[in-house]
Order: sequence, then C-alpha cells, then structure tokens
Amino acid sequence: SSATSIDAMAEPSTGFTARDATAPPVPNGRLHRIELRVREVVREVAPGVRQRLWTFNGTSPGPVLRGRIGDAFEVTLINDGTIDHGIDFHAGALAPDRPMRPIDPGQRLTYRFTATKAGIWMYHCSTMPMLHHIGNGMYGAVIIDPPDLPAVEHEYVLVQSELYLGPDSQPGDLAKMQAERPDAVVFNGYASQYAYQPLTADAGERVRIWLLNAGPNRSSAFHVVGAQFDTVYAEGRWQLRPDEPGAAQVLDLAPAAGGFVETVPPEPGNYPFVTHAMVDAERGARGMIQVR
Amino acid sequence: SSATSIDAMAEPSTGFTARDATAPPVPNGRLHRIELRVREVVREVAPGVRQRLWTFNGTSPGPVLRGRIGDAFEVTLINDGTIDHGIDFHAGALAPDRPMRPIDPGQRLTYRFTATKAGIWMYHCSTMPMLHHIGNGMYGAVIIDPPDLPAVEHEYVLVQSELYLGPDSQPGDLAKMQAERPDAVVFNGYASQYAYQPLTADAGERVRIWLLNAGPNRSSAFHVVGAQFDTVYAEGRWQLRPDEPGAAQVLDLAPAAGGFVETVPPEPGNYPFVTHAMVDAERGARGMIQVR
Amino acid sequence: SSATSIDAMAEPSTGFTARDATAPPVPNGRLHRIELRVREVVREVAPGVRQRLWTFNGTSPGPVLRGRIGDAFEVTLINDGTIDHGIDFHAGALAPDRPMRPIDPGQRLTYRFTATKAGIWMYHCSTMPMLHHIGNGMYGAVIIDPPDLPAVEHEYVLVQSELYLGPDSQPGDLAKMQAERPDAVVFNGYASQYAYQPLTADAGERVRIWLLNAGPNRSSAFHVVGAQFDTVYAEGRWQLRPDEPGAAQVLDLAPAAGGFVETVPPEPGNYPFVTHAMVDAERGARGMIQVR
Ligand SMILES: [Cu+2]
Ligand SMILES: [Cu+2]
Ligand SMILES: [Cu+2]
Ligand SMILES: [Cu+2]
Ligand SMILES: [Cu+2]
Ligand SMILES: [Cu+2]
Ligand code: NA
Ligand code: NA
Ligand code: NA
Ligand code: NA
Ligand code: NA
Ligand code: NA
Ligand SMILES: [Zn+2]
Ligand SMILES: [Zn+2]
Ligand SMILES: [Zn+2]
Ligand SMILES: [Zn+2]
Ligand SMILES: [Zn+2]
Ligand SMILES: [Zn+2]
Ligand SMILES: [Zn+2]
Ligand SMILES: [Zn+2]
Ligand SMILES: [Zn+2]
Repeated sequence: SSATSIDAMAEPSTGFTARDATAPPVPNGRLHRIELRVREVVREVAPGVRQRLWTFNGTSPGPVLRGRIGDAFEVTLINDGTIDHGIDFHAGALAPDRPMRPIDPGQRLTYRFTATKAGIWMYHCSTMPMLHHIGNGMYGAVIIDPPDLPAVEHEYVLVQSELYLGPDSQPGDLAKMQAERPDAVVFNGYASQYAYQPLTADAGERVRIWLLNAGPNRSSAFHVVGAQFDTVYAEGRWQLRPDEPGAAQVLDLAPAAGGFVETVPPEPGNYPFVTHAMVDAERGARGMIQVR
Repeated sequence: SSATSIDAMAEPSTGFTARDATAPPVPNGRLHRIELRVREVVREVAPGVRQRLWTFNGTSPGPVLRGRIGDAFEVTLINDGTIDHGIDFHAGALAPDRPMRPIDPGQRLTYRFTATKAGIWMYHCSTMPMLHHIGNGMYGAVIIDPPDLPAVEHEYVLVQSELYLGPDSQPGDLAKMQAERPDAVVFNGYASQYAYQPLTADAGERVRIWLLNAGPNRSSAFHVVGAQFDTVYAEGRWQLRPDEPGAAQVLDLAPAAGGFVETVPPEPGNYPFVTHAMVDAERGARGMIQVR
Repeated sequence: SSATSIDAMAEPSTGFTARDATAPPVPNGRLHRIELRVREVVREVAPGVRQRLWTFNGTSPGPVLRGRIGDAFEVTLINDGTIDHGIDFHAGALAPDRPMRPIDPGQRLTYRFTATKAGIWMYHCSTMPMLHHIGNGMYGAVIIDPPDLPAVEHEYVLVQSELYLGPDSQPGDLAKMQAERPDAVVFNGYASQYAYQPLTADAGERVRIWLLNAGPNRSSAFHVVGAQFDTVYAEGRWQLRPDEPGAAQVLDLAPAAGGFVETVPPEPGNYPFVTHAMVDAERGARGMIQVR
C-alpha cells in the first residue's frame, strides 16, 4: 500500500530513476512543432507516495521546450484526460480567448505563438481552478535563450513546485491548496530526488541552472551550498555577471517567475541545493550536485 | 442579509460599479493641496459581503495622488471616525513624530512633504496596530513620475490588498490578520471587480499598469495572461525597457513595494490578470483587460 | 517564572541592554582568524521570555564578521554544546563535505575560505535539521565590502529571524517551525529591542543599514518610517545610487538573502523601522532610529 504523507526517512524503490534535469539543446529550425498530450497518470512523487497527476505528456513537470528569439512554436494539445484541460504559454503574447480555452476530453487544439522575448517562461493548464490544475502537475518551462548566451559545460533545469497530497493514487487535495498546507515542495516533481541521484558537474567547470517556480503558491529562495552565483539572470534581465565584484547566495523567485544562476564549483565534492526557506527544503525542495 | 465569507459564484448586485482604475493625470502646479477625511463606512467588498471599512475619503484604497519630482504636498487629515487615526506617506522624508501622530476623532492635522524621489509610494494610517488599520482599508498610493516617463495610451493603477472579514458590516477581523488567514485578496478593494467590469485597452497600444502592494501581509506576483512585460519599473528603478531582448512574466512585490509594468496587447481579446500566487488569485486577486 | 508567549505590553527587565547593532570595522590584515564556540545558553528573547538557544559564541545572531574581497578567513569551530553542530559560510566557495560536517560535542574543526565576492553573506549551523538549528539561533553574517564602498557616518547591521517558542528556557519548537507558526519575528535576536533602546543617527548624516534575512522561513520587507532609501545594494549588486531620480521604500529579502540600504534623515526625530509585512512587525520585527 502507498502512503499519503511523506516519510523523510524512506528511500525510493529499487529502480527509481530521477528525472533527467539536463537542459535540452536549442533545436534546429525556427519552427518548433510539439505535441502535448494531457494524460492523467498515477506516479510516485516521493518514496512510497503515489498520486494521480494531471500531466502534459505523462510527466510533471511537462517537457522543457527551448528556442531562440523569433522562433515560432506550434503546439498541438490533445486532451486524453477525463476532465477539461487547456494550456497557457507565458512565452508568447496573444489573446487568450481561443488558444487558452478549456477543451473537452478527446478534443484537441493548436496553439501557435512566436517567442519574441528571452527568458524562462512558465506554461500551465488554463482550466479553472488553475490552483488545482497547476497544483496537480500541469506546468512546465519554455526557455528562450537570451542572445549570445555563452555555452557552459553543464546546464540543468529545475522547476520548483508544491505537492498537496490527496488519498493514495488520487489527485492532489484542493482544500490543502486553498489552505496553503503543502505536504511537500519539490524540484522536478519528486521529493528530494537529486539527493538520491545527484546532478553531476566537474570542478572548475561552469554550471548553469535554470529555475522556474511553478508554485502554485510559494516563493523560492534557491541556493547551492558551497557555491556562489557569479551570474544571475531573472525575469528577462541580467542581474549579475562574472566580472562584477559581487555575487549572490539566493535567487528569489515569486510564483511563475524564472531565471538562471551560474557557478563554478572550485573543487570536487557534494554540493547540496535547496530553497533556503528551510521548511520547504525539509519538505523535499533539496538535492545534490556531485562535483568530480 | 449579508454574507461574511466570499461566494466565488455570486455576482455583484445590480448597479455595481467598479472603481475607476484609470491613473489620474499629473495635476498642474507644483503645490498640491489635498484633504483626506477619515470616514468609517460600510461598503461592499465582494458580492453580497459588506464590511465597515476605515477609509480615506470614503473609499479603500484612498485616492491616488500624483505629482512630479520636486512637488510639494500639503495634506489636511481630518478624523471623522470614531477612533484615533493618523497618516504616513512613504512619498516624503520627514521626522514621523508630529505628522504621523494619531489624532482623536474630530481633530485635524496638516502633513507637508516634498517629493524628491520618483516611484509609486504607499500611504497608510499610522495608528497602532497598523496591521488592523491597513487591513481594514486605510491605504493608498502616491505616484511621483520618473523624469521623462513616456505618455502611453492607457494607464491604470491597481492596489493589491487582503481582506480579513469580520461579521456583517463590521470592521475586519484582527485575529484573522494576526493568524494570516485572509478571506480575500483583491485589486482596488473589491474581489474580482475587473472580472465583472474589465479594464479596457486597444490592440497595438501600450498599456501601463502601476501596482502597489498594500498588504498588510502577503506578497504579490502580478501577471497578465497573454501578455509579456517589456517594461518593468519597481521600487525606484527601471528594470526592463522595450529595447532589451528579455521580458518579464511577473512583477514580484513585497508588502509596501510598488512599480509599474507595460505591455502592448497584440490583438483584440480578453486578457485576465492575476497574482500568480494562485491561491490569492482564487481569493479574488484577478481581473480582466478587454482589448478591442 | 518565565512566559512562553510574547506579551507585547511587557517591558524588558531592568538592566536590559540591546545588542550593539553597530557594524564592525573592516579589521586590519588580510587573514582573519576567528574562533566560533558553539554554546547552548538560556537567553531572554523578549520581555520575560527565555529560551535555550544554540549559539555561536553565546549570542544569537553570532558575531558579525567583516573583510575585503580577497581576504582569507580561518575559523575554528568548537562544539561546546550537547548535540552535534557544524557550520556553513555562504561567504566562501568550497566543497561542503568536510568543512560543513557535523561535529560531536567536544570536537573542533577548522574552516578556511577566501572571500572572493562582495556582499553580506549568511553563515549558519549545517547540522540537520537545519530548520531547527537556524530556528534556534545558529546564524550570523559575514560582510565583504564592495570595492570603494563609501564611508558613512552611521553604519548598522540588522539580522531578521523568527522565533518559535518552546517551553520556558527550552529550545525552540521544531513542530512550530514546520507548521510555520512563529511566535515572534525579530531583529538581532530580541523582540522589538531597538524600540526600547533605539539606534542613533544625526540629521543630515548618511546612515547605512546592512540587512540579512536569516529566516529560517519568512521573507523580509524592510522599511524605515519617514525615510526613503536612495541607495540599495542587494545580493551582490547595486540597485540604486543617490544620483538616480528614484528611491525605494522597501528592501525585499528572501530567506538567506542580504544587502544594505542607505538614507539621510532630514531632521531630528524618531524614525521607526519595520518589516512592512505588518503581522511580523507586530510580532517584534520593529525598532527605532533616534535622530538627533
Ligand atoms: Cu489542466
Ligand atoms: Cu545556507
Ligand atoms: Cu487608521
Ligand atoms: Cu500563468
Ligand atoms: Cu547547529
Ligand atoms: Cu509604511
Ligand atoms: Na548553504
Ligand atoms: Na518575493
Ligand atoms: Na497566464
Ligand atoms: Na522579490
Ligand atoms: Na512607514
Ligand atoms: Na521576495
Ligand atoms: Zn486541467
Ligand atoms: Zn467541457
Ligand atoms: Zn563536465
Ligand atoms: Zn486608524
Ligand atoms: Zn486619542
Ligand atoms: Zn486605446
Ligand atoms: Zn547545531
Ligand atoms: Zn555525532
Ligand atoms: Zn552622527
């Protein structure tokens, strides 16, 4: 049987594989055709805890999309779920009325946008109550590279979100979402997954971590233990670059905000990452970077 | 009879008129004389929900004041209420002792300040407990234009705040404020009012929205669905301008912080706005921009 | 007998002395040797309220350390407590494995780092659950001056943190920390201490206030009543300088974030300071600057 609360001492089951946090490359071409299929699936979200998530393409977060300024995206949304769902891409500007409308199970719609501005943009289900649809797994990130973004040796994407557990293998509990009582706060959909299976990097090599805070409710204060951020980009602007004398210890992200940080781990070792809102770190918003 | 909790399905009564969110123009002259009369009034704050608000000039938020750098303000505060009240203008620097002192019912004081710095500044009652006085309606905004602020086609002011309901037609509940249990989160004092009576704009025209987060307790993560902010100004500084390659999806405002965002809706339609802290959006911190 | 909740009307006992908030000067030399001795001590944290704090050198916050970019720090941590403790300095970059490991009572370790980047950096106990160790007093600040930081007439350091009271003279309550129910929010470890014994400044002279938000959980929205911040530096970057036309009313700091603000009080008087999250100001995150 499966638990409906998080046991911080439990270990993931044998065969557990953490979500690959590697940032996808910018695909070739200037038109990106993507199919997003809404699927309601039972998934483990913490050791021994299963929930019936509402997802884009079977995972929560949904896939990370990426492109350049000027790229066109043509997204086909297919509702293979049992209730209405829809979609909202922050990465493009358009009248919401038609593309963000909820569609019935079995229906599809095509959502076209051109990405004219850089940043890491949230996408999420657009069906009311959005608190429930985001809170039960329907969110993801679109990265539009700033011009002349330098290549780095290691580049990851982490999406922070909250979990409000319902009964075993059932959807998340809307009442808990309304009461702001999260059972867990997680990166990429699973409590502490990168503590079990760390991200990797190499001493002396630059690491970029893209962050999106999907919420639905809480802020993030992202921090890497042992590291300093000599580069910070958030909500469409550079805030710090390596040639400046200061650095940052925290990237503060409101719900639906995003950005990236960069650091160069100075030596091999294990560098934990957390939101420094410690109650959320203890709830599962923590992981590890294993530096060789 | 009147409810003491919010019914998200209710509609405002016939004859409801949303507060005009249009930003006032900068008045002529360099000395602005304003009378702020404290009035304790019963007002509807959500469909079917009335509260006894403490107000400046009968509305919550109080009037939006505006001026230029260097302007002098002479504010006469008159306490027509039943308890002590006072005032505190963030827009000017001065020793608080005399101008911010609480005054008895029936008394008045004159508060003089010169606005030497640009921004959107909070004002609020200065009487203890300020949590109660701000939480029961005593707040407003002073806009001091940055030099060379461009004219835009549509310019609005939204003040986010929380409602902690007391009994029908009574003041807000201090215990709920202390327990951080808001019944509603609202723009310009009434739950979801611009969902019922939208702001308006035109496709291809620039819209500027000034935001002040009056709190008293919660942060705001302002977002316009379907839009991107190519211009962001917050807490006295430009953060993004249209010629930059990035844009923002969220304006993150701590309690008592303020700024503005700009966007150009690309096509006609209905563009919702929210705080993307979704629990607060569901509590009433949402509205609509109708783009012709 | 001692209380286990805060009485906002109580006064500190005779002989109470507020913690000196004066920023220490940058010491001579480029190698700073510091001894941090973990001591578990009973301390008053509000009038009539005593807690068994876990501290660095007997006070919470621990000592403020200061240096220049390029300085080396050699910190000897000695665990004179009854349980494991450790330390984590955000001010330096290094592999956490050995220097941040928990050490047994009676043990010591040496933690060496070089400060290559400017900012106000948190340090804290590194032992799990960090929520409890930070929440029970184990935090402090390291200031690394930005190059060419101007001298100012008055320079203070305030660390905001939360208190979650346990029984009289016992450690803070972990369950309250997990439930996010703080009994108090304080600057420099004692509720409203600078309301009883104000900071001092002089009219027309520049005041710099360094801020670190130690959390463990809540954001800070630092504000000085009657003042405007013409200078803001946060998380390693200048955000506002005096020659700019705008100014700030709030410094928004996520947990573990830090910075400084500057203001020039225009005239003698009493200028309160608060976090403008009013519920936290009422919980004790308030004080006074007495301007002569
Ligand atoms: Cu959905
Ligand atoms: Cu830390
Ligand atoms: Cu008042
Ligand atoms: Cu959204
Ligand atoms: Cu400790
Ligand atoms: Cu104020
Ligand atoms: Na750390
Ligand atoms: Na925030
Ligand atoms: Na949206
Ligand atoms: Na912020
Ligand atoms: Na104030
Ligand atoms: Na914040
Ligand atoms: Zn849905
Ligand atoms: Zn339907
Ligand atoms: Zn490598
Ligand atoms: Zn009042
Ligand atoms: Zn009186
Ligand atoms: Zn128009
Ligand atoms: Zn410890
Ligand atoms: Zn041990
Ligand atoms: Zn002086």
